[in-house]
Amino acid sequence: MISIQRFTERLARLRTITAPGRGITRLAFTDEDWAGRAYMISLMREADLAVREDAFGNVIGRREGTRPDLTPVLCGSHGDSVPEGGNFDGICGTLAAIELAQSMQEDGWQNERPYEAVLFMCEESSRFGAATLGSRAMCGELSPRDLLTYHDKEGRALYDVLKRRGLDPDHIERAKYPVRPAAFFEMHIEQGRVLEHERKKAGVVTGIAAPTRLRFRIHGHPDHSGAAPMTLRHDGLAAAAELILAVERIARSHADPPVVGTASTLRLRPNAINVVPGEVTLGVDIRSISAEAKADTVRRVLDEAEAIGARRQVPFDVDWMSDERPVPIRRDVVDFLMDCCAAEGLPAMTLPSGAGHDAMHWAERCPTGMLFLPCRGGVSHNPDEYAEVEDIAGAARVLERAVRQALQADFHFREEGQQ
Amino acid sequence: MISIQRFTERLARLRTITAPGRGITRLAFTDEDWAGRAYMISLMREADLAVREDAFGNVIGRREGTRPDLTPVLCGSHGDSVPEGGNFDGICGTLAAIELAQSMQEDGWQNERPYEAVLFMCEESSRFGAATLGSRAMCGELSPRDLLTYHDKEGRALYDVLKRRGLDPDHIERAKYPVRPAAFFEMHIEQGRVLEHERKKAGVVTGIAAPTRLRFRIHGHPDHSGAAPMTLRHDGLAAAAELILAVERIARSHADPPVVGTASTLRLRPNAINVVPGEVTLGVDIRSISAEAKADTVRRVLDEAEAIGARRQVPFDVDWMSDERPVPIRRDVVDFLMDCCAAEGLPAMTLPSGAGHDAMHWAERCPTGMLFLPCRGGVSHNPDEYAEVEDIAGAARVLERAVRQALQADFHFREEGQQ
Repeated sequence: MISIQRFTERLARLRTITAPGRGITRLAFTDEDWAGRAYMISLMREADLAVREDAFGNVIGRREGTRPDLTPVLCGSHGDSVPEGGNFDGICGTLAAIELAQSMQEDGWQNERPYEAVLFMCEESSRFGAATLGSRAMCGELSPRDLLTYHDKEGRALYDVLKRRGLDPDHIERAKYPVRPAAFFEMHIEQGRVLEHERKKAGVVTGIAAPTRLRFRIHGHPDHSGAAPMTLRHDGLAAAAELILAVERIARSHADPPVVGTASTLRLRPNAINVVPGEVTLGVDIRSISAEAKADTVRRVLDEAEAIGARRQVPFDVDWMSDERPVPIRRDVVDFLMDCCAAEGLPAMTLPSGAGHDAMHWAERCPTGMLFLPCRGGVSHNPDEYAEVEDIAGAARVLERAVRQALQADFHFREEGQQ
Repeated sequence: MISIQRFTERLARLRTITAPGRGITRLAFTDEDWAGRAYMISLMREADLAVREDAFGNVIGRREGTRPDLTPVLCGSHGDSVPEGGNFDGICGTLAAIELAQSMQEDGWQNERPYEAVLFMCEESSRFGAATLGSRAMCGELSPRDLLTYHDKEGRALYDVLKRRGLDPDHIERAKYPVRPAAFFEMHIEQGRVLEHERKKAGVVTGIAAPTRLRFRIHGHPDHSGAAPMTLRHDGLAAAAELILAVERIARSHADPPVVGTASTLRLRPNAINVVPGEVTLGVDIRSISAEAKADTVRRVLDEAEAIGARRQVPFDVDWMSDERPVPIRRDVVDFLMDCCAAEGLPAMTLPSGAGHDAMHWAERCPTGMLFLPCRGGVSHNPDEYAEVEDIAGAARVLERAVRQALQADFHFREEGQQ
């Protein structure tokens, strides 16, 4: 049985595992992230799972099935956070995956296929500027060169960070999951306010809007803020301001299918009160579940940057940090999860995911289902992030129903059954 | 005679007196600043000046006149630098003041009024967050309480720093210059590119535009950049972008008298690629030689901030960091220096000073003239700061002509002559 008390206790414990400051800060591979990971390994052991880690540090807890020759069902989410984030993003799904195993153990419920609860590393892009890296490693999408390319703000390469954690970046290909799983499921808070607005307790995801991320380097000219006349300036920050507003305006103009565009990071040199801004680095994040709408937005943003740069004589460079394709979710898996919600009596709806998730990498490889639960006010990546433990447990019950069905040797999703 | 060779040698020597790193770093009262001061004291002695220091550490080198009963003519600038600054800011003017004495000595030219070359301490605000402190001490504008209030980034009070240098912060009032000088002159690099743009070799300053500095705290709401629809956002950075452009637009609209307005510092939280920006702190610096034009600009910027905040439902707080009055330069002194430029055959123009200088404190007390020389690309407060030694010498010749006239017992500026 899914235990509300256990969820409550474990969420409370994880709330204490954070860097100092507001909310939860467990940036990937930091000491806090590592402490959270150790705690979740201990929970996997408590649930009698056989724990292993891969070359990237992803943690996999296996409950053997009566048919160990069959491909396993996977269920999991991540344990890291953004800076000053909340206590529900990621860990709800990870705790639920472990809870499912503990529930099977306590119920004496025997799975035929093997079950694996997964804690993915480095889902958030906050530290290395790229998201869902653990899942990418497990799906064979992370190369040794990538590990050398990604750096944190202190200039440390992901490669070196992995080394320092005793992991195996030189053989990152060994992190690739060796078979096509029977299914992958992820439960996650919505991080939006659609469920709350529609008064639903569960949302079955129909597609995932992966981001395109651009980094603009804007080469303004630093001048004395008192001595440089307005007409002779090439102000990097004023140029950036025009682009920030252009991103907002262009994204807003795409209402259906919707696009979201955010100028979310900005660094400024010299950042001194008496100097006209010179170098500005601006990070822009653009998402849609429509590849076409996203591509159109990106093109218009790039055009706008060029126009601003030409008008102000402030050169712009642009790096493509990531350019991921939106991922559709199979219709039969969506229907299956909707049926599970109905069987558990949970009011549910289908909806797209605006955020990227670990599930998007699995969706291209195996039947994948993603289940959202409501979070208050749609607030996420924020200390005020909050989900009711009853809602977490309710979604976990749907997940349990789905996983237990998928663990049966003779279960097939509709499309597969028709093949 | 003004010696180009001496300027070249002395600039080269001063270039070696710096903390490690790029460019010149001689923060006020540090060992490097003190070494630079010792070197300039040695140059004053070489020019046969009688050297004394005051309670704040300002160094005054006196060449007695044939009429020691008359008030002296003062000439000088500063010796400290910003972090990673250039080798011309301040020291051009200080070396010129010393050079004038050496030239008088070598020419056997006899001054009637006493001549005093001054090396001002702590002109840059880089260490203690407040500028032109040496001149403020000499003008009686620095109290013992101020000395306890100003701290460097390591938390050391200016009072203690002065004590450690063997100075006399307990009797800071003794640093006050005892009489109203006959005149004060300062030569300085422009730190802008107006002279370069206008192809002039000298600029006579018409007024000094002290800044009003505002710090806006913009309380946006951090949301997930993928999951928060455009219509439900309260993006702190987009709000800041509107204000950045408003500052630029409003300042530009004041062409005569000109205003410069700069959004020069920006800090952003959480500054993560996948989070809609929340808290933004934006520093704005507004200057004009017209108090009215500056006040009008500040008012319109504040109105704009309020309007942006209301429209976006993003609250703005504002702190007034400083609000100094512009200092006009007497018209007769401007005309006198322009005449001196013409007599030396140096192409000159009048212009306002956007930056604060030691001269602004003297301008309120005695006839004060300030002479700019061009610096390449307007670059200052930067290792790339550069001025041609011929231009330094050219401006010094104008200065010499002005000072020698002002040192005559029967010389009067026009306004005084009319009184």
